[in-house]
Amino acid sequence: MEKIEPIMFDRILLTIDADDPEANVKALSYAVTQAKEFGAALGICSVLEGDDINIYDSLTPKRLDEKRAALNEVINKYVDLAKDFGVQDVTPIASEGGDIDDQILDTIIPNFNPDLLVCGADKDGEHHFYSISVKLAKKAKVSVIVVR
Amino acid sequence: MEKIEPIMFDRILLTIDADDPEANVKALSYAVTQAKEFGAALGICSVLEGDDINIYDSLTPKRLDEKRAALNEVINKYVDLAKDFGVQDVTPIASEGGDIDDQILDTIIPNFNPDLLVCGADKDGEHHFYSISVKLAKKAKVSVIVVR
Repeated sequence: MEKIEPIMFDRILLTIDADDPEANVKALSYAVTQAKEFGAALGICSVLEGDDINIYDSLTPKRLDEKRAALNEVINKYVDLAKDFGVQDVTPIASEGGDIDDQILDTIIPNFNPDLLVCGADKDGEHHFYSISVKLAKKAKVSVIVVR
Repeated sequence: MEKIEPIMFDRILLTIDADDPEANVKALSYAVTQAKEFGAALGICSVLEGDDINIYDSLTPKRLDEKRAALNEVINKYVDLAKDFGVQDVTPIASEGGDIDDQILDTIIPNFNPDLLVCGADKDGEHHFYSISVKLAKKAKVSVIVVR
């Protein structure tokens, strides 16, 4: 009979939804517990969605800069919480454009190269018809946890 | 700023697909690592699907008993591996009837009361059009990890 080897994740990527702090804190709590326990690197990412940038914004660099600054502020808040918790290696990752899930799958994951993706759950479990976390759980080539 | 509390799971439920040993071993490896590290109870479940029982089987108690015995043998193999790994509290759970995901969601989860569900991934990530693991990640009221 085969022998079982432990699986510990080395690079954990946490996805943050700027509009859902409760889900973020739960997902963060799991991610930092794992990262601290197993000495993993932690990336914390969020995406400025294409739909969030209207034509007026895109023609007004100051407005776009404000939105980017707000996104970075949210990410950095969670980065600080992770460091306070005791995770040594924490990387903020801000990204923008297109669909959130495509941006995570096609840009952020290939760059950060995680072996585990940590997602929060939508508020009531089925907030969107087909939530981003479920899309990621389906499409990512790495392990995905949806934290509830 | 809020303070982050660690999240550790106390009751971990591993779902086994009798037809996909490679996915099972990966998911088991993650589940036992967590259960041993955090002292969690581990349930290992598999479902004899309604579709796997044809009319001939259902009219032939011996055939049905053979199928049940085969399912228990598979589950017990993983239970033994988990115990060999060092997990103290391991419970085999065999179930049957209807759809696998409904059986897990409506019967096994309410009985075992896990705070984490651990699922293997289909062989190529999208083996079925809409895999059981993804359905569970979407519908379960507890955290779900799809291990790849």
